[in-house]
Amino acid sequence: MIIGRIVGNVWATRKEDTLNGLKFLVIKPMDHYYDKELPTFVAVDTIGAGIGEIVLVTKGSSARKILGKDNAPIDATIVGIIDSVEIDKE
Amino acid sequence: MIIGRIVGNVWATRKEDTLNGLKFLVIKPMDHYYDKELPTFVAVDTIGAGIGEIVLVTKGSSARKILGKDNAPIDATIVGIIDSVEIDKE
Amino acid sequence: MIIGRIVGNVWATRKEDTLNGLKFLVIKPMDHYYDKELPTFVAVDTIGAGIGEIVLVTKGSSARKILGKDNAPIDATIVGIIDSVEIDKE
Amino acid sequence: MIIGRIVGNVWATRKEDTLNGLKFLVIKPMDHYYDKELPTFVAVDTIGAGIGEIVLVTKGSSARKILGKDNAPIDATIVGIIDSVEIDKE
Amino acid sequence: MIIGRIVGNVWATRKEDTLNGLKFLVIKPMDHYYDKELPTFVAVDTIGAGIGEIVLVTKGSSARKILGKDNAPIDATIVGIIDSVEIDKE
Repeated sequence: MIIGRIVGNVWATRKEDTLNGLKFLVIKPMDHYYDKELPTFVAVDTIGAGIGEIVLVTKGSSARKILGKDNAPIDATIVGIIDSVEIDKE
Repeated sequence: MIIGRIVGNVWATRKEDTLNGLKFLVIKPMDHYYDKELPTFVAVDTIGAGIGEIVLVTKGSSARKILGKDNAPIDATIVGIIDSVEIDKE
Repeated sequence: MIIGRIVGNVWATRKEDTLNGLKFLVIKPMDHYYDKELPTFVAVDTIGAGIGEIVLVTKGSSARKILGKDNAPIDATIVGIIDSVEIDKE
Repeated sequence: MIIGRIVGNVWATRKEDTLNGLKFLVIKPMDHYYDKELPTFVAVDTIGAGIGEIVLVTKGSSARKILGKDNAPIDATIVGIIDSVEIDKE
Repeated sequence: MIIGRIVGNVWATRKEDTLNGLKFLVIKPMDHYYDKELPTFVAVDTIGAGIGEIVLVTKGSSARKILGKDNAPIDATIVGIIDSVEIDKE
C-alpha cells in the first residue's frame, strides 16, 4: 500500500456504468524517508475521506477487493484514514 | 487510476483477434501536483473519447473489467471523460 | 499497453516447459511525447513480428490472455504490429 | 520480491473491515547493487517483524496469498525476515 | 519479462510456510539499450540458476504460474537461463 495526502477531487459524468456513484479523489503519494516527489494518481473513496486527509491506498487488482467491486474497472482504492505514522530513521 | 490527455491515435491491422474493432489512443499522463513529465502509453477507448480530451484511465488487470473484455489482452482502458479536476495545493 | 521497437532476440534453452516454442524479443519502449529513454524488457511474440518493427505490447497478467497461455509464466506479449501512430502535440 | 528495512508503523482506526487486526509497517526498499534511494511504501505483517528488521516483501496480487487473505484489499505483504544477503559485485 | 544477472543469495529462516524449500536470488536488471542502472529485486529460482548467470525473469501474478505455486505469495520467478541476447541498435 502507499500513504498519500488527498489533494483534489475529480468529476466525470461520462464514465463506465460500474463506476457510477463512486467518489474519485486525487492522491499525492508521501515518501516518509527521502521525501521524494511522486506523481499524483486517482483513487476511489468508499470510506468518506476528504481533501487534506492522509490515507492508506491499495493499488492494482487488490483495489477491487472492496464492497463487491470485483467487477469494476478500478486500480486504486482508499482503504484507511491514517491516525498517525511513526518513522524511525535509524 | 490516472488522469491523462489523449494526444494521439494508433493503427495496427495485424493484431490479436480479440482486439479487433477496438480503438487505441495514446495517453499523456498528467501529474496535478508536481507537473512531472511522464512517458506516454496506449489505452483502449470504449467511451467515445477523442484527441485533446482529459480522461480517467484504469491500468493493469482491472482494465479488462469493461464490457466483457475479461479475456482480451489489454492492460489500460479509458473509463471516464473528465469534466473537471479540483486541486488544493495546501 | 505500450508502443515499442523490437531491438533484439533472446535465446534460452533451459527454461520453464510452458515457454517451449515461444519467441522472445527485446523491446525498447517508445515515449511519443517527451522521448524519454526507458529501459528495455522482453516480450513473447505470437504474431510474427521481427527486429526493427514498431509493436503494441501488453504487460502484466493480461499478457497471458493470448492463445490459451493463461497458465504460462509470461508478463509481456506483443499483441499488434503498428501501421502508424498519429500524435497531436497541442 | 523486494528486500526492505522496516522504518515505521502506521495506525488507521477507520479502515476497511477486512483489514481489522492487521499490522501495517512502513518499508524502505533496499537496492543491493547501486544503493538507489527508493520511496517508502506500506506492507502488512503477519510474521511478527519489527522496526529495524530487514524483510522480504511480496507486492501486487500475490500479496493476498497469505493466510486466507485472498479477499482483502492488500497489495504488499512481509513474507520473510531475512537472516543474511550475500552479494557478488562481479 | 526482464533480463537480469544473478548477483546474490538471500536467506530467511522465518518465512511464510508456502515459501519453504524455495531458493531466493538477488537480480540486477539489465537494460540492453541505454544501460540504465535499475534497482535490484529478489526472484524465486526453480531452474537451478546460480550467481553470475544471465536469466529471464517474470514478474507480477504471472510469477506464480510455475510448478503449482499459484497459491504462494511470490511476485518474481526465474523462468529461463539465457544462452545469448542479440541486440540491433538501429
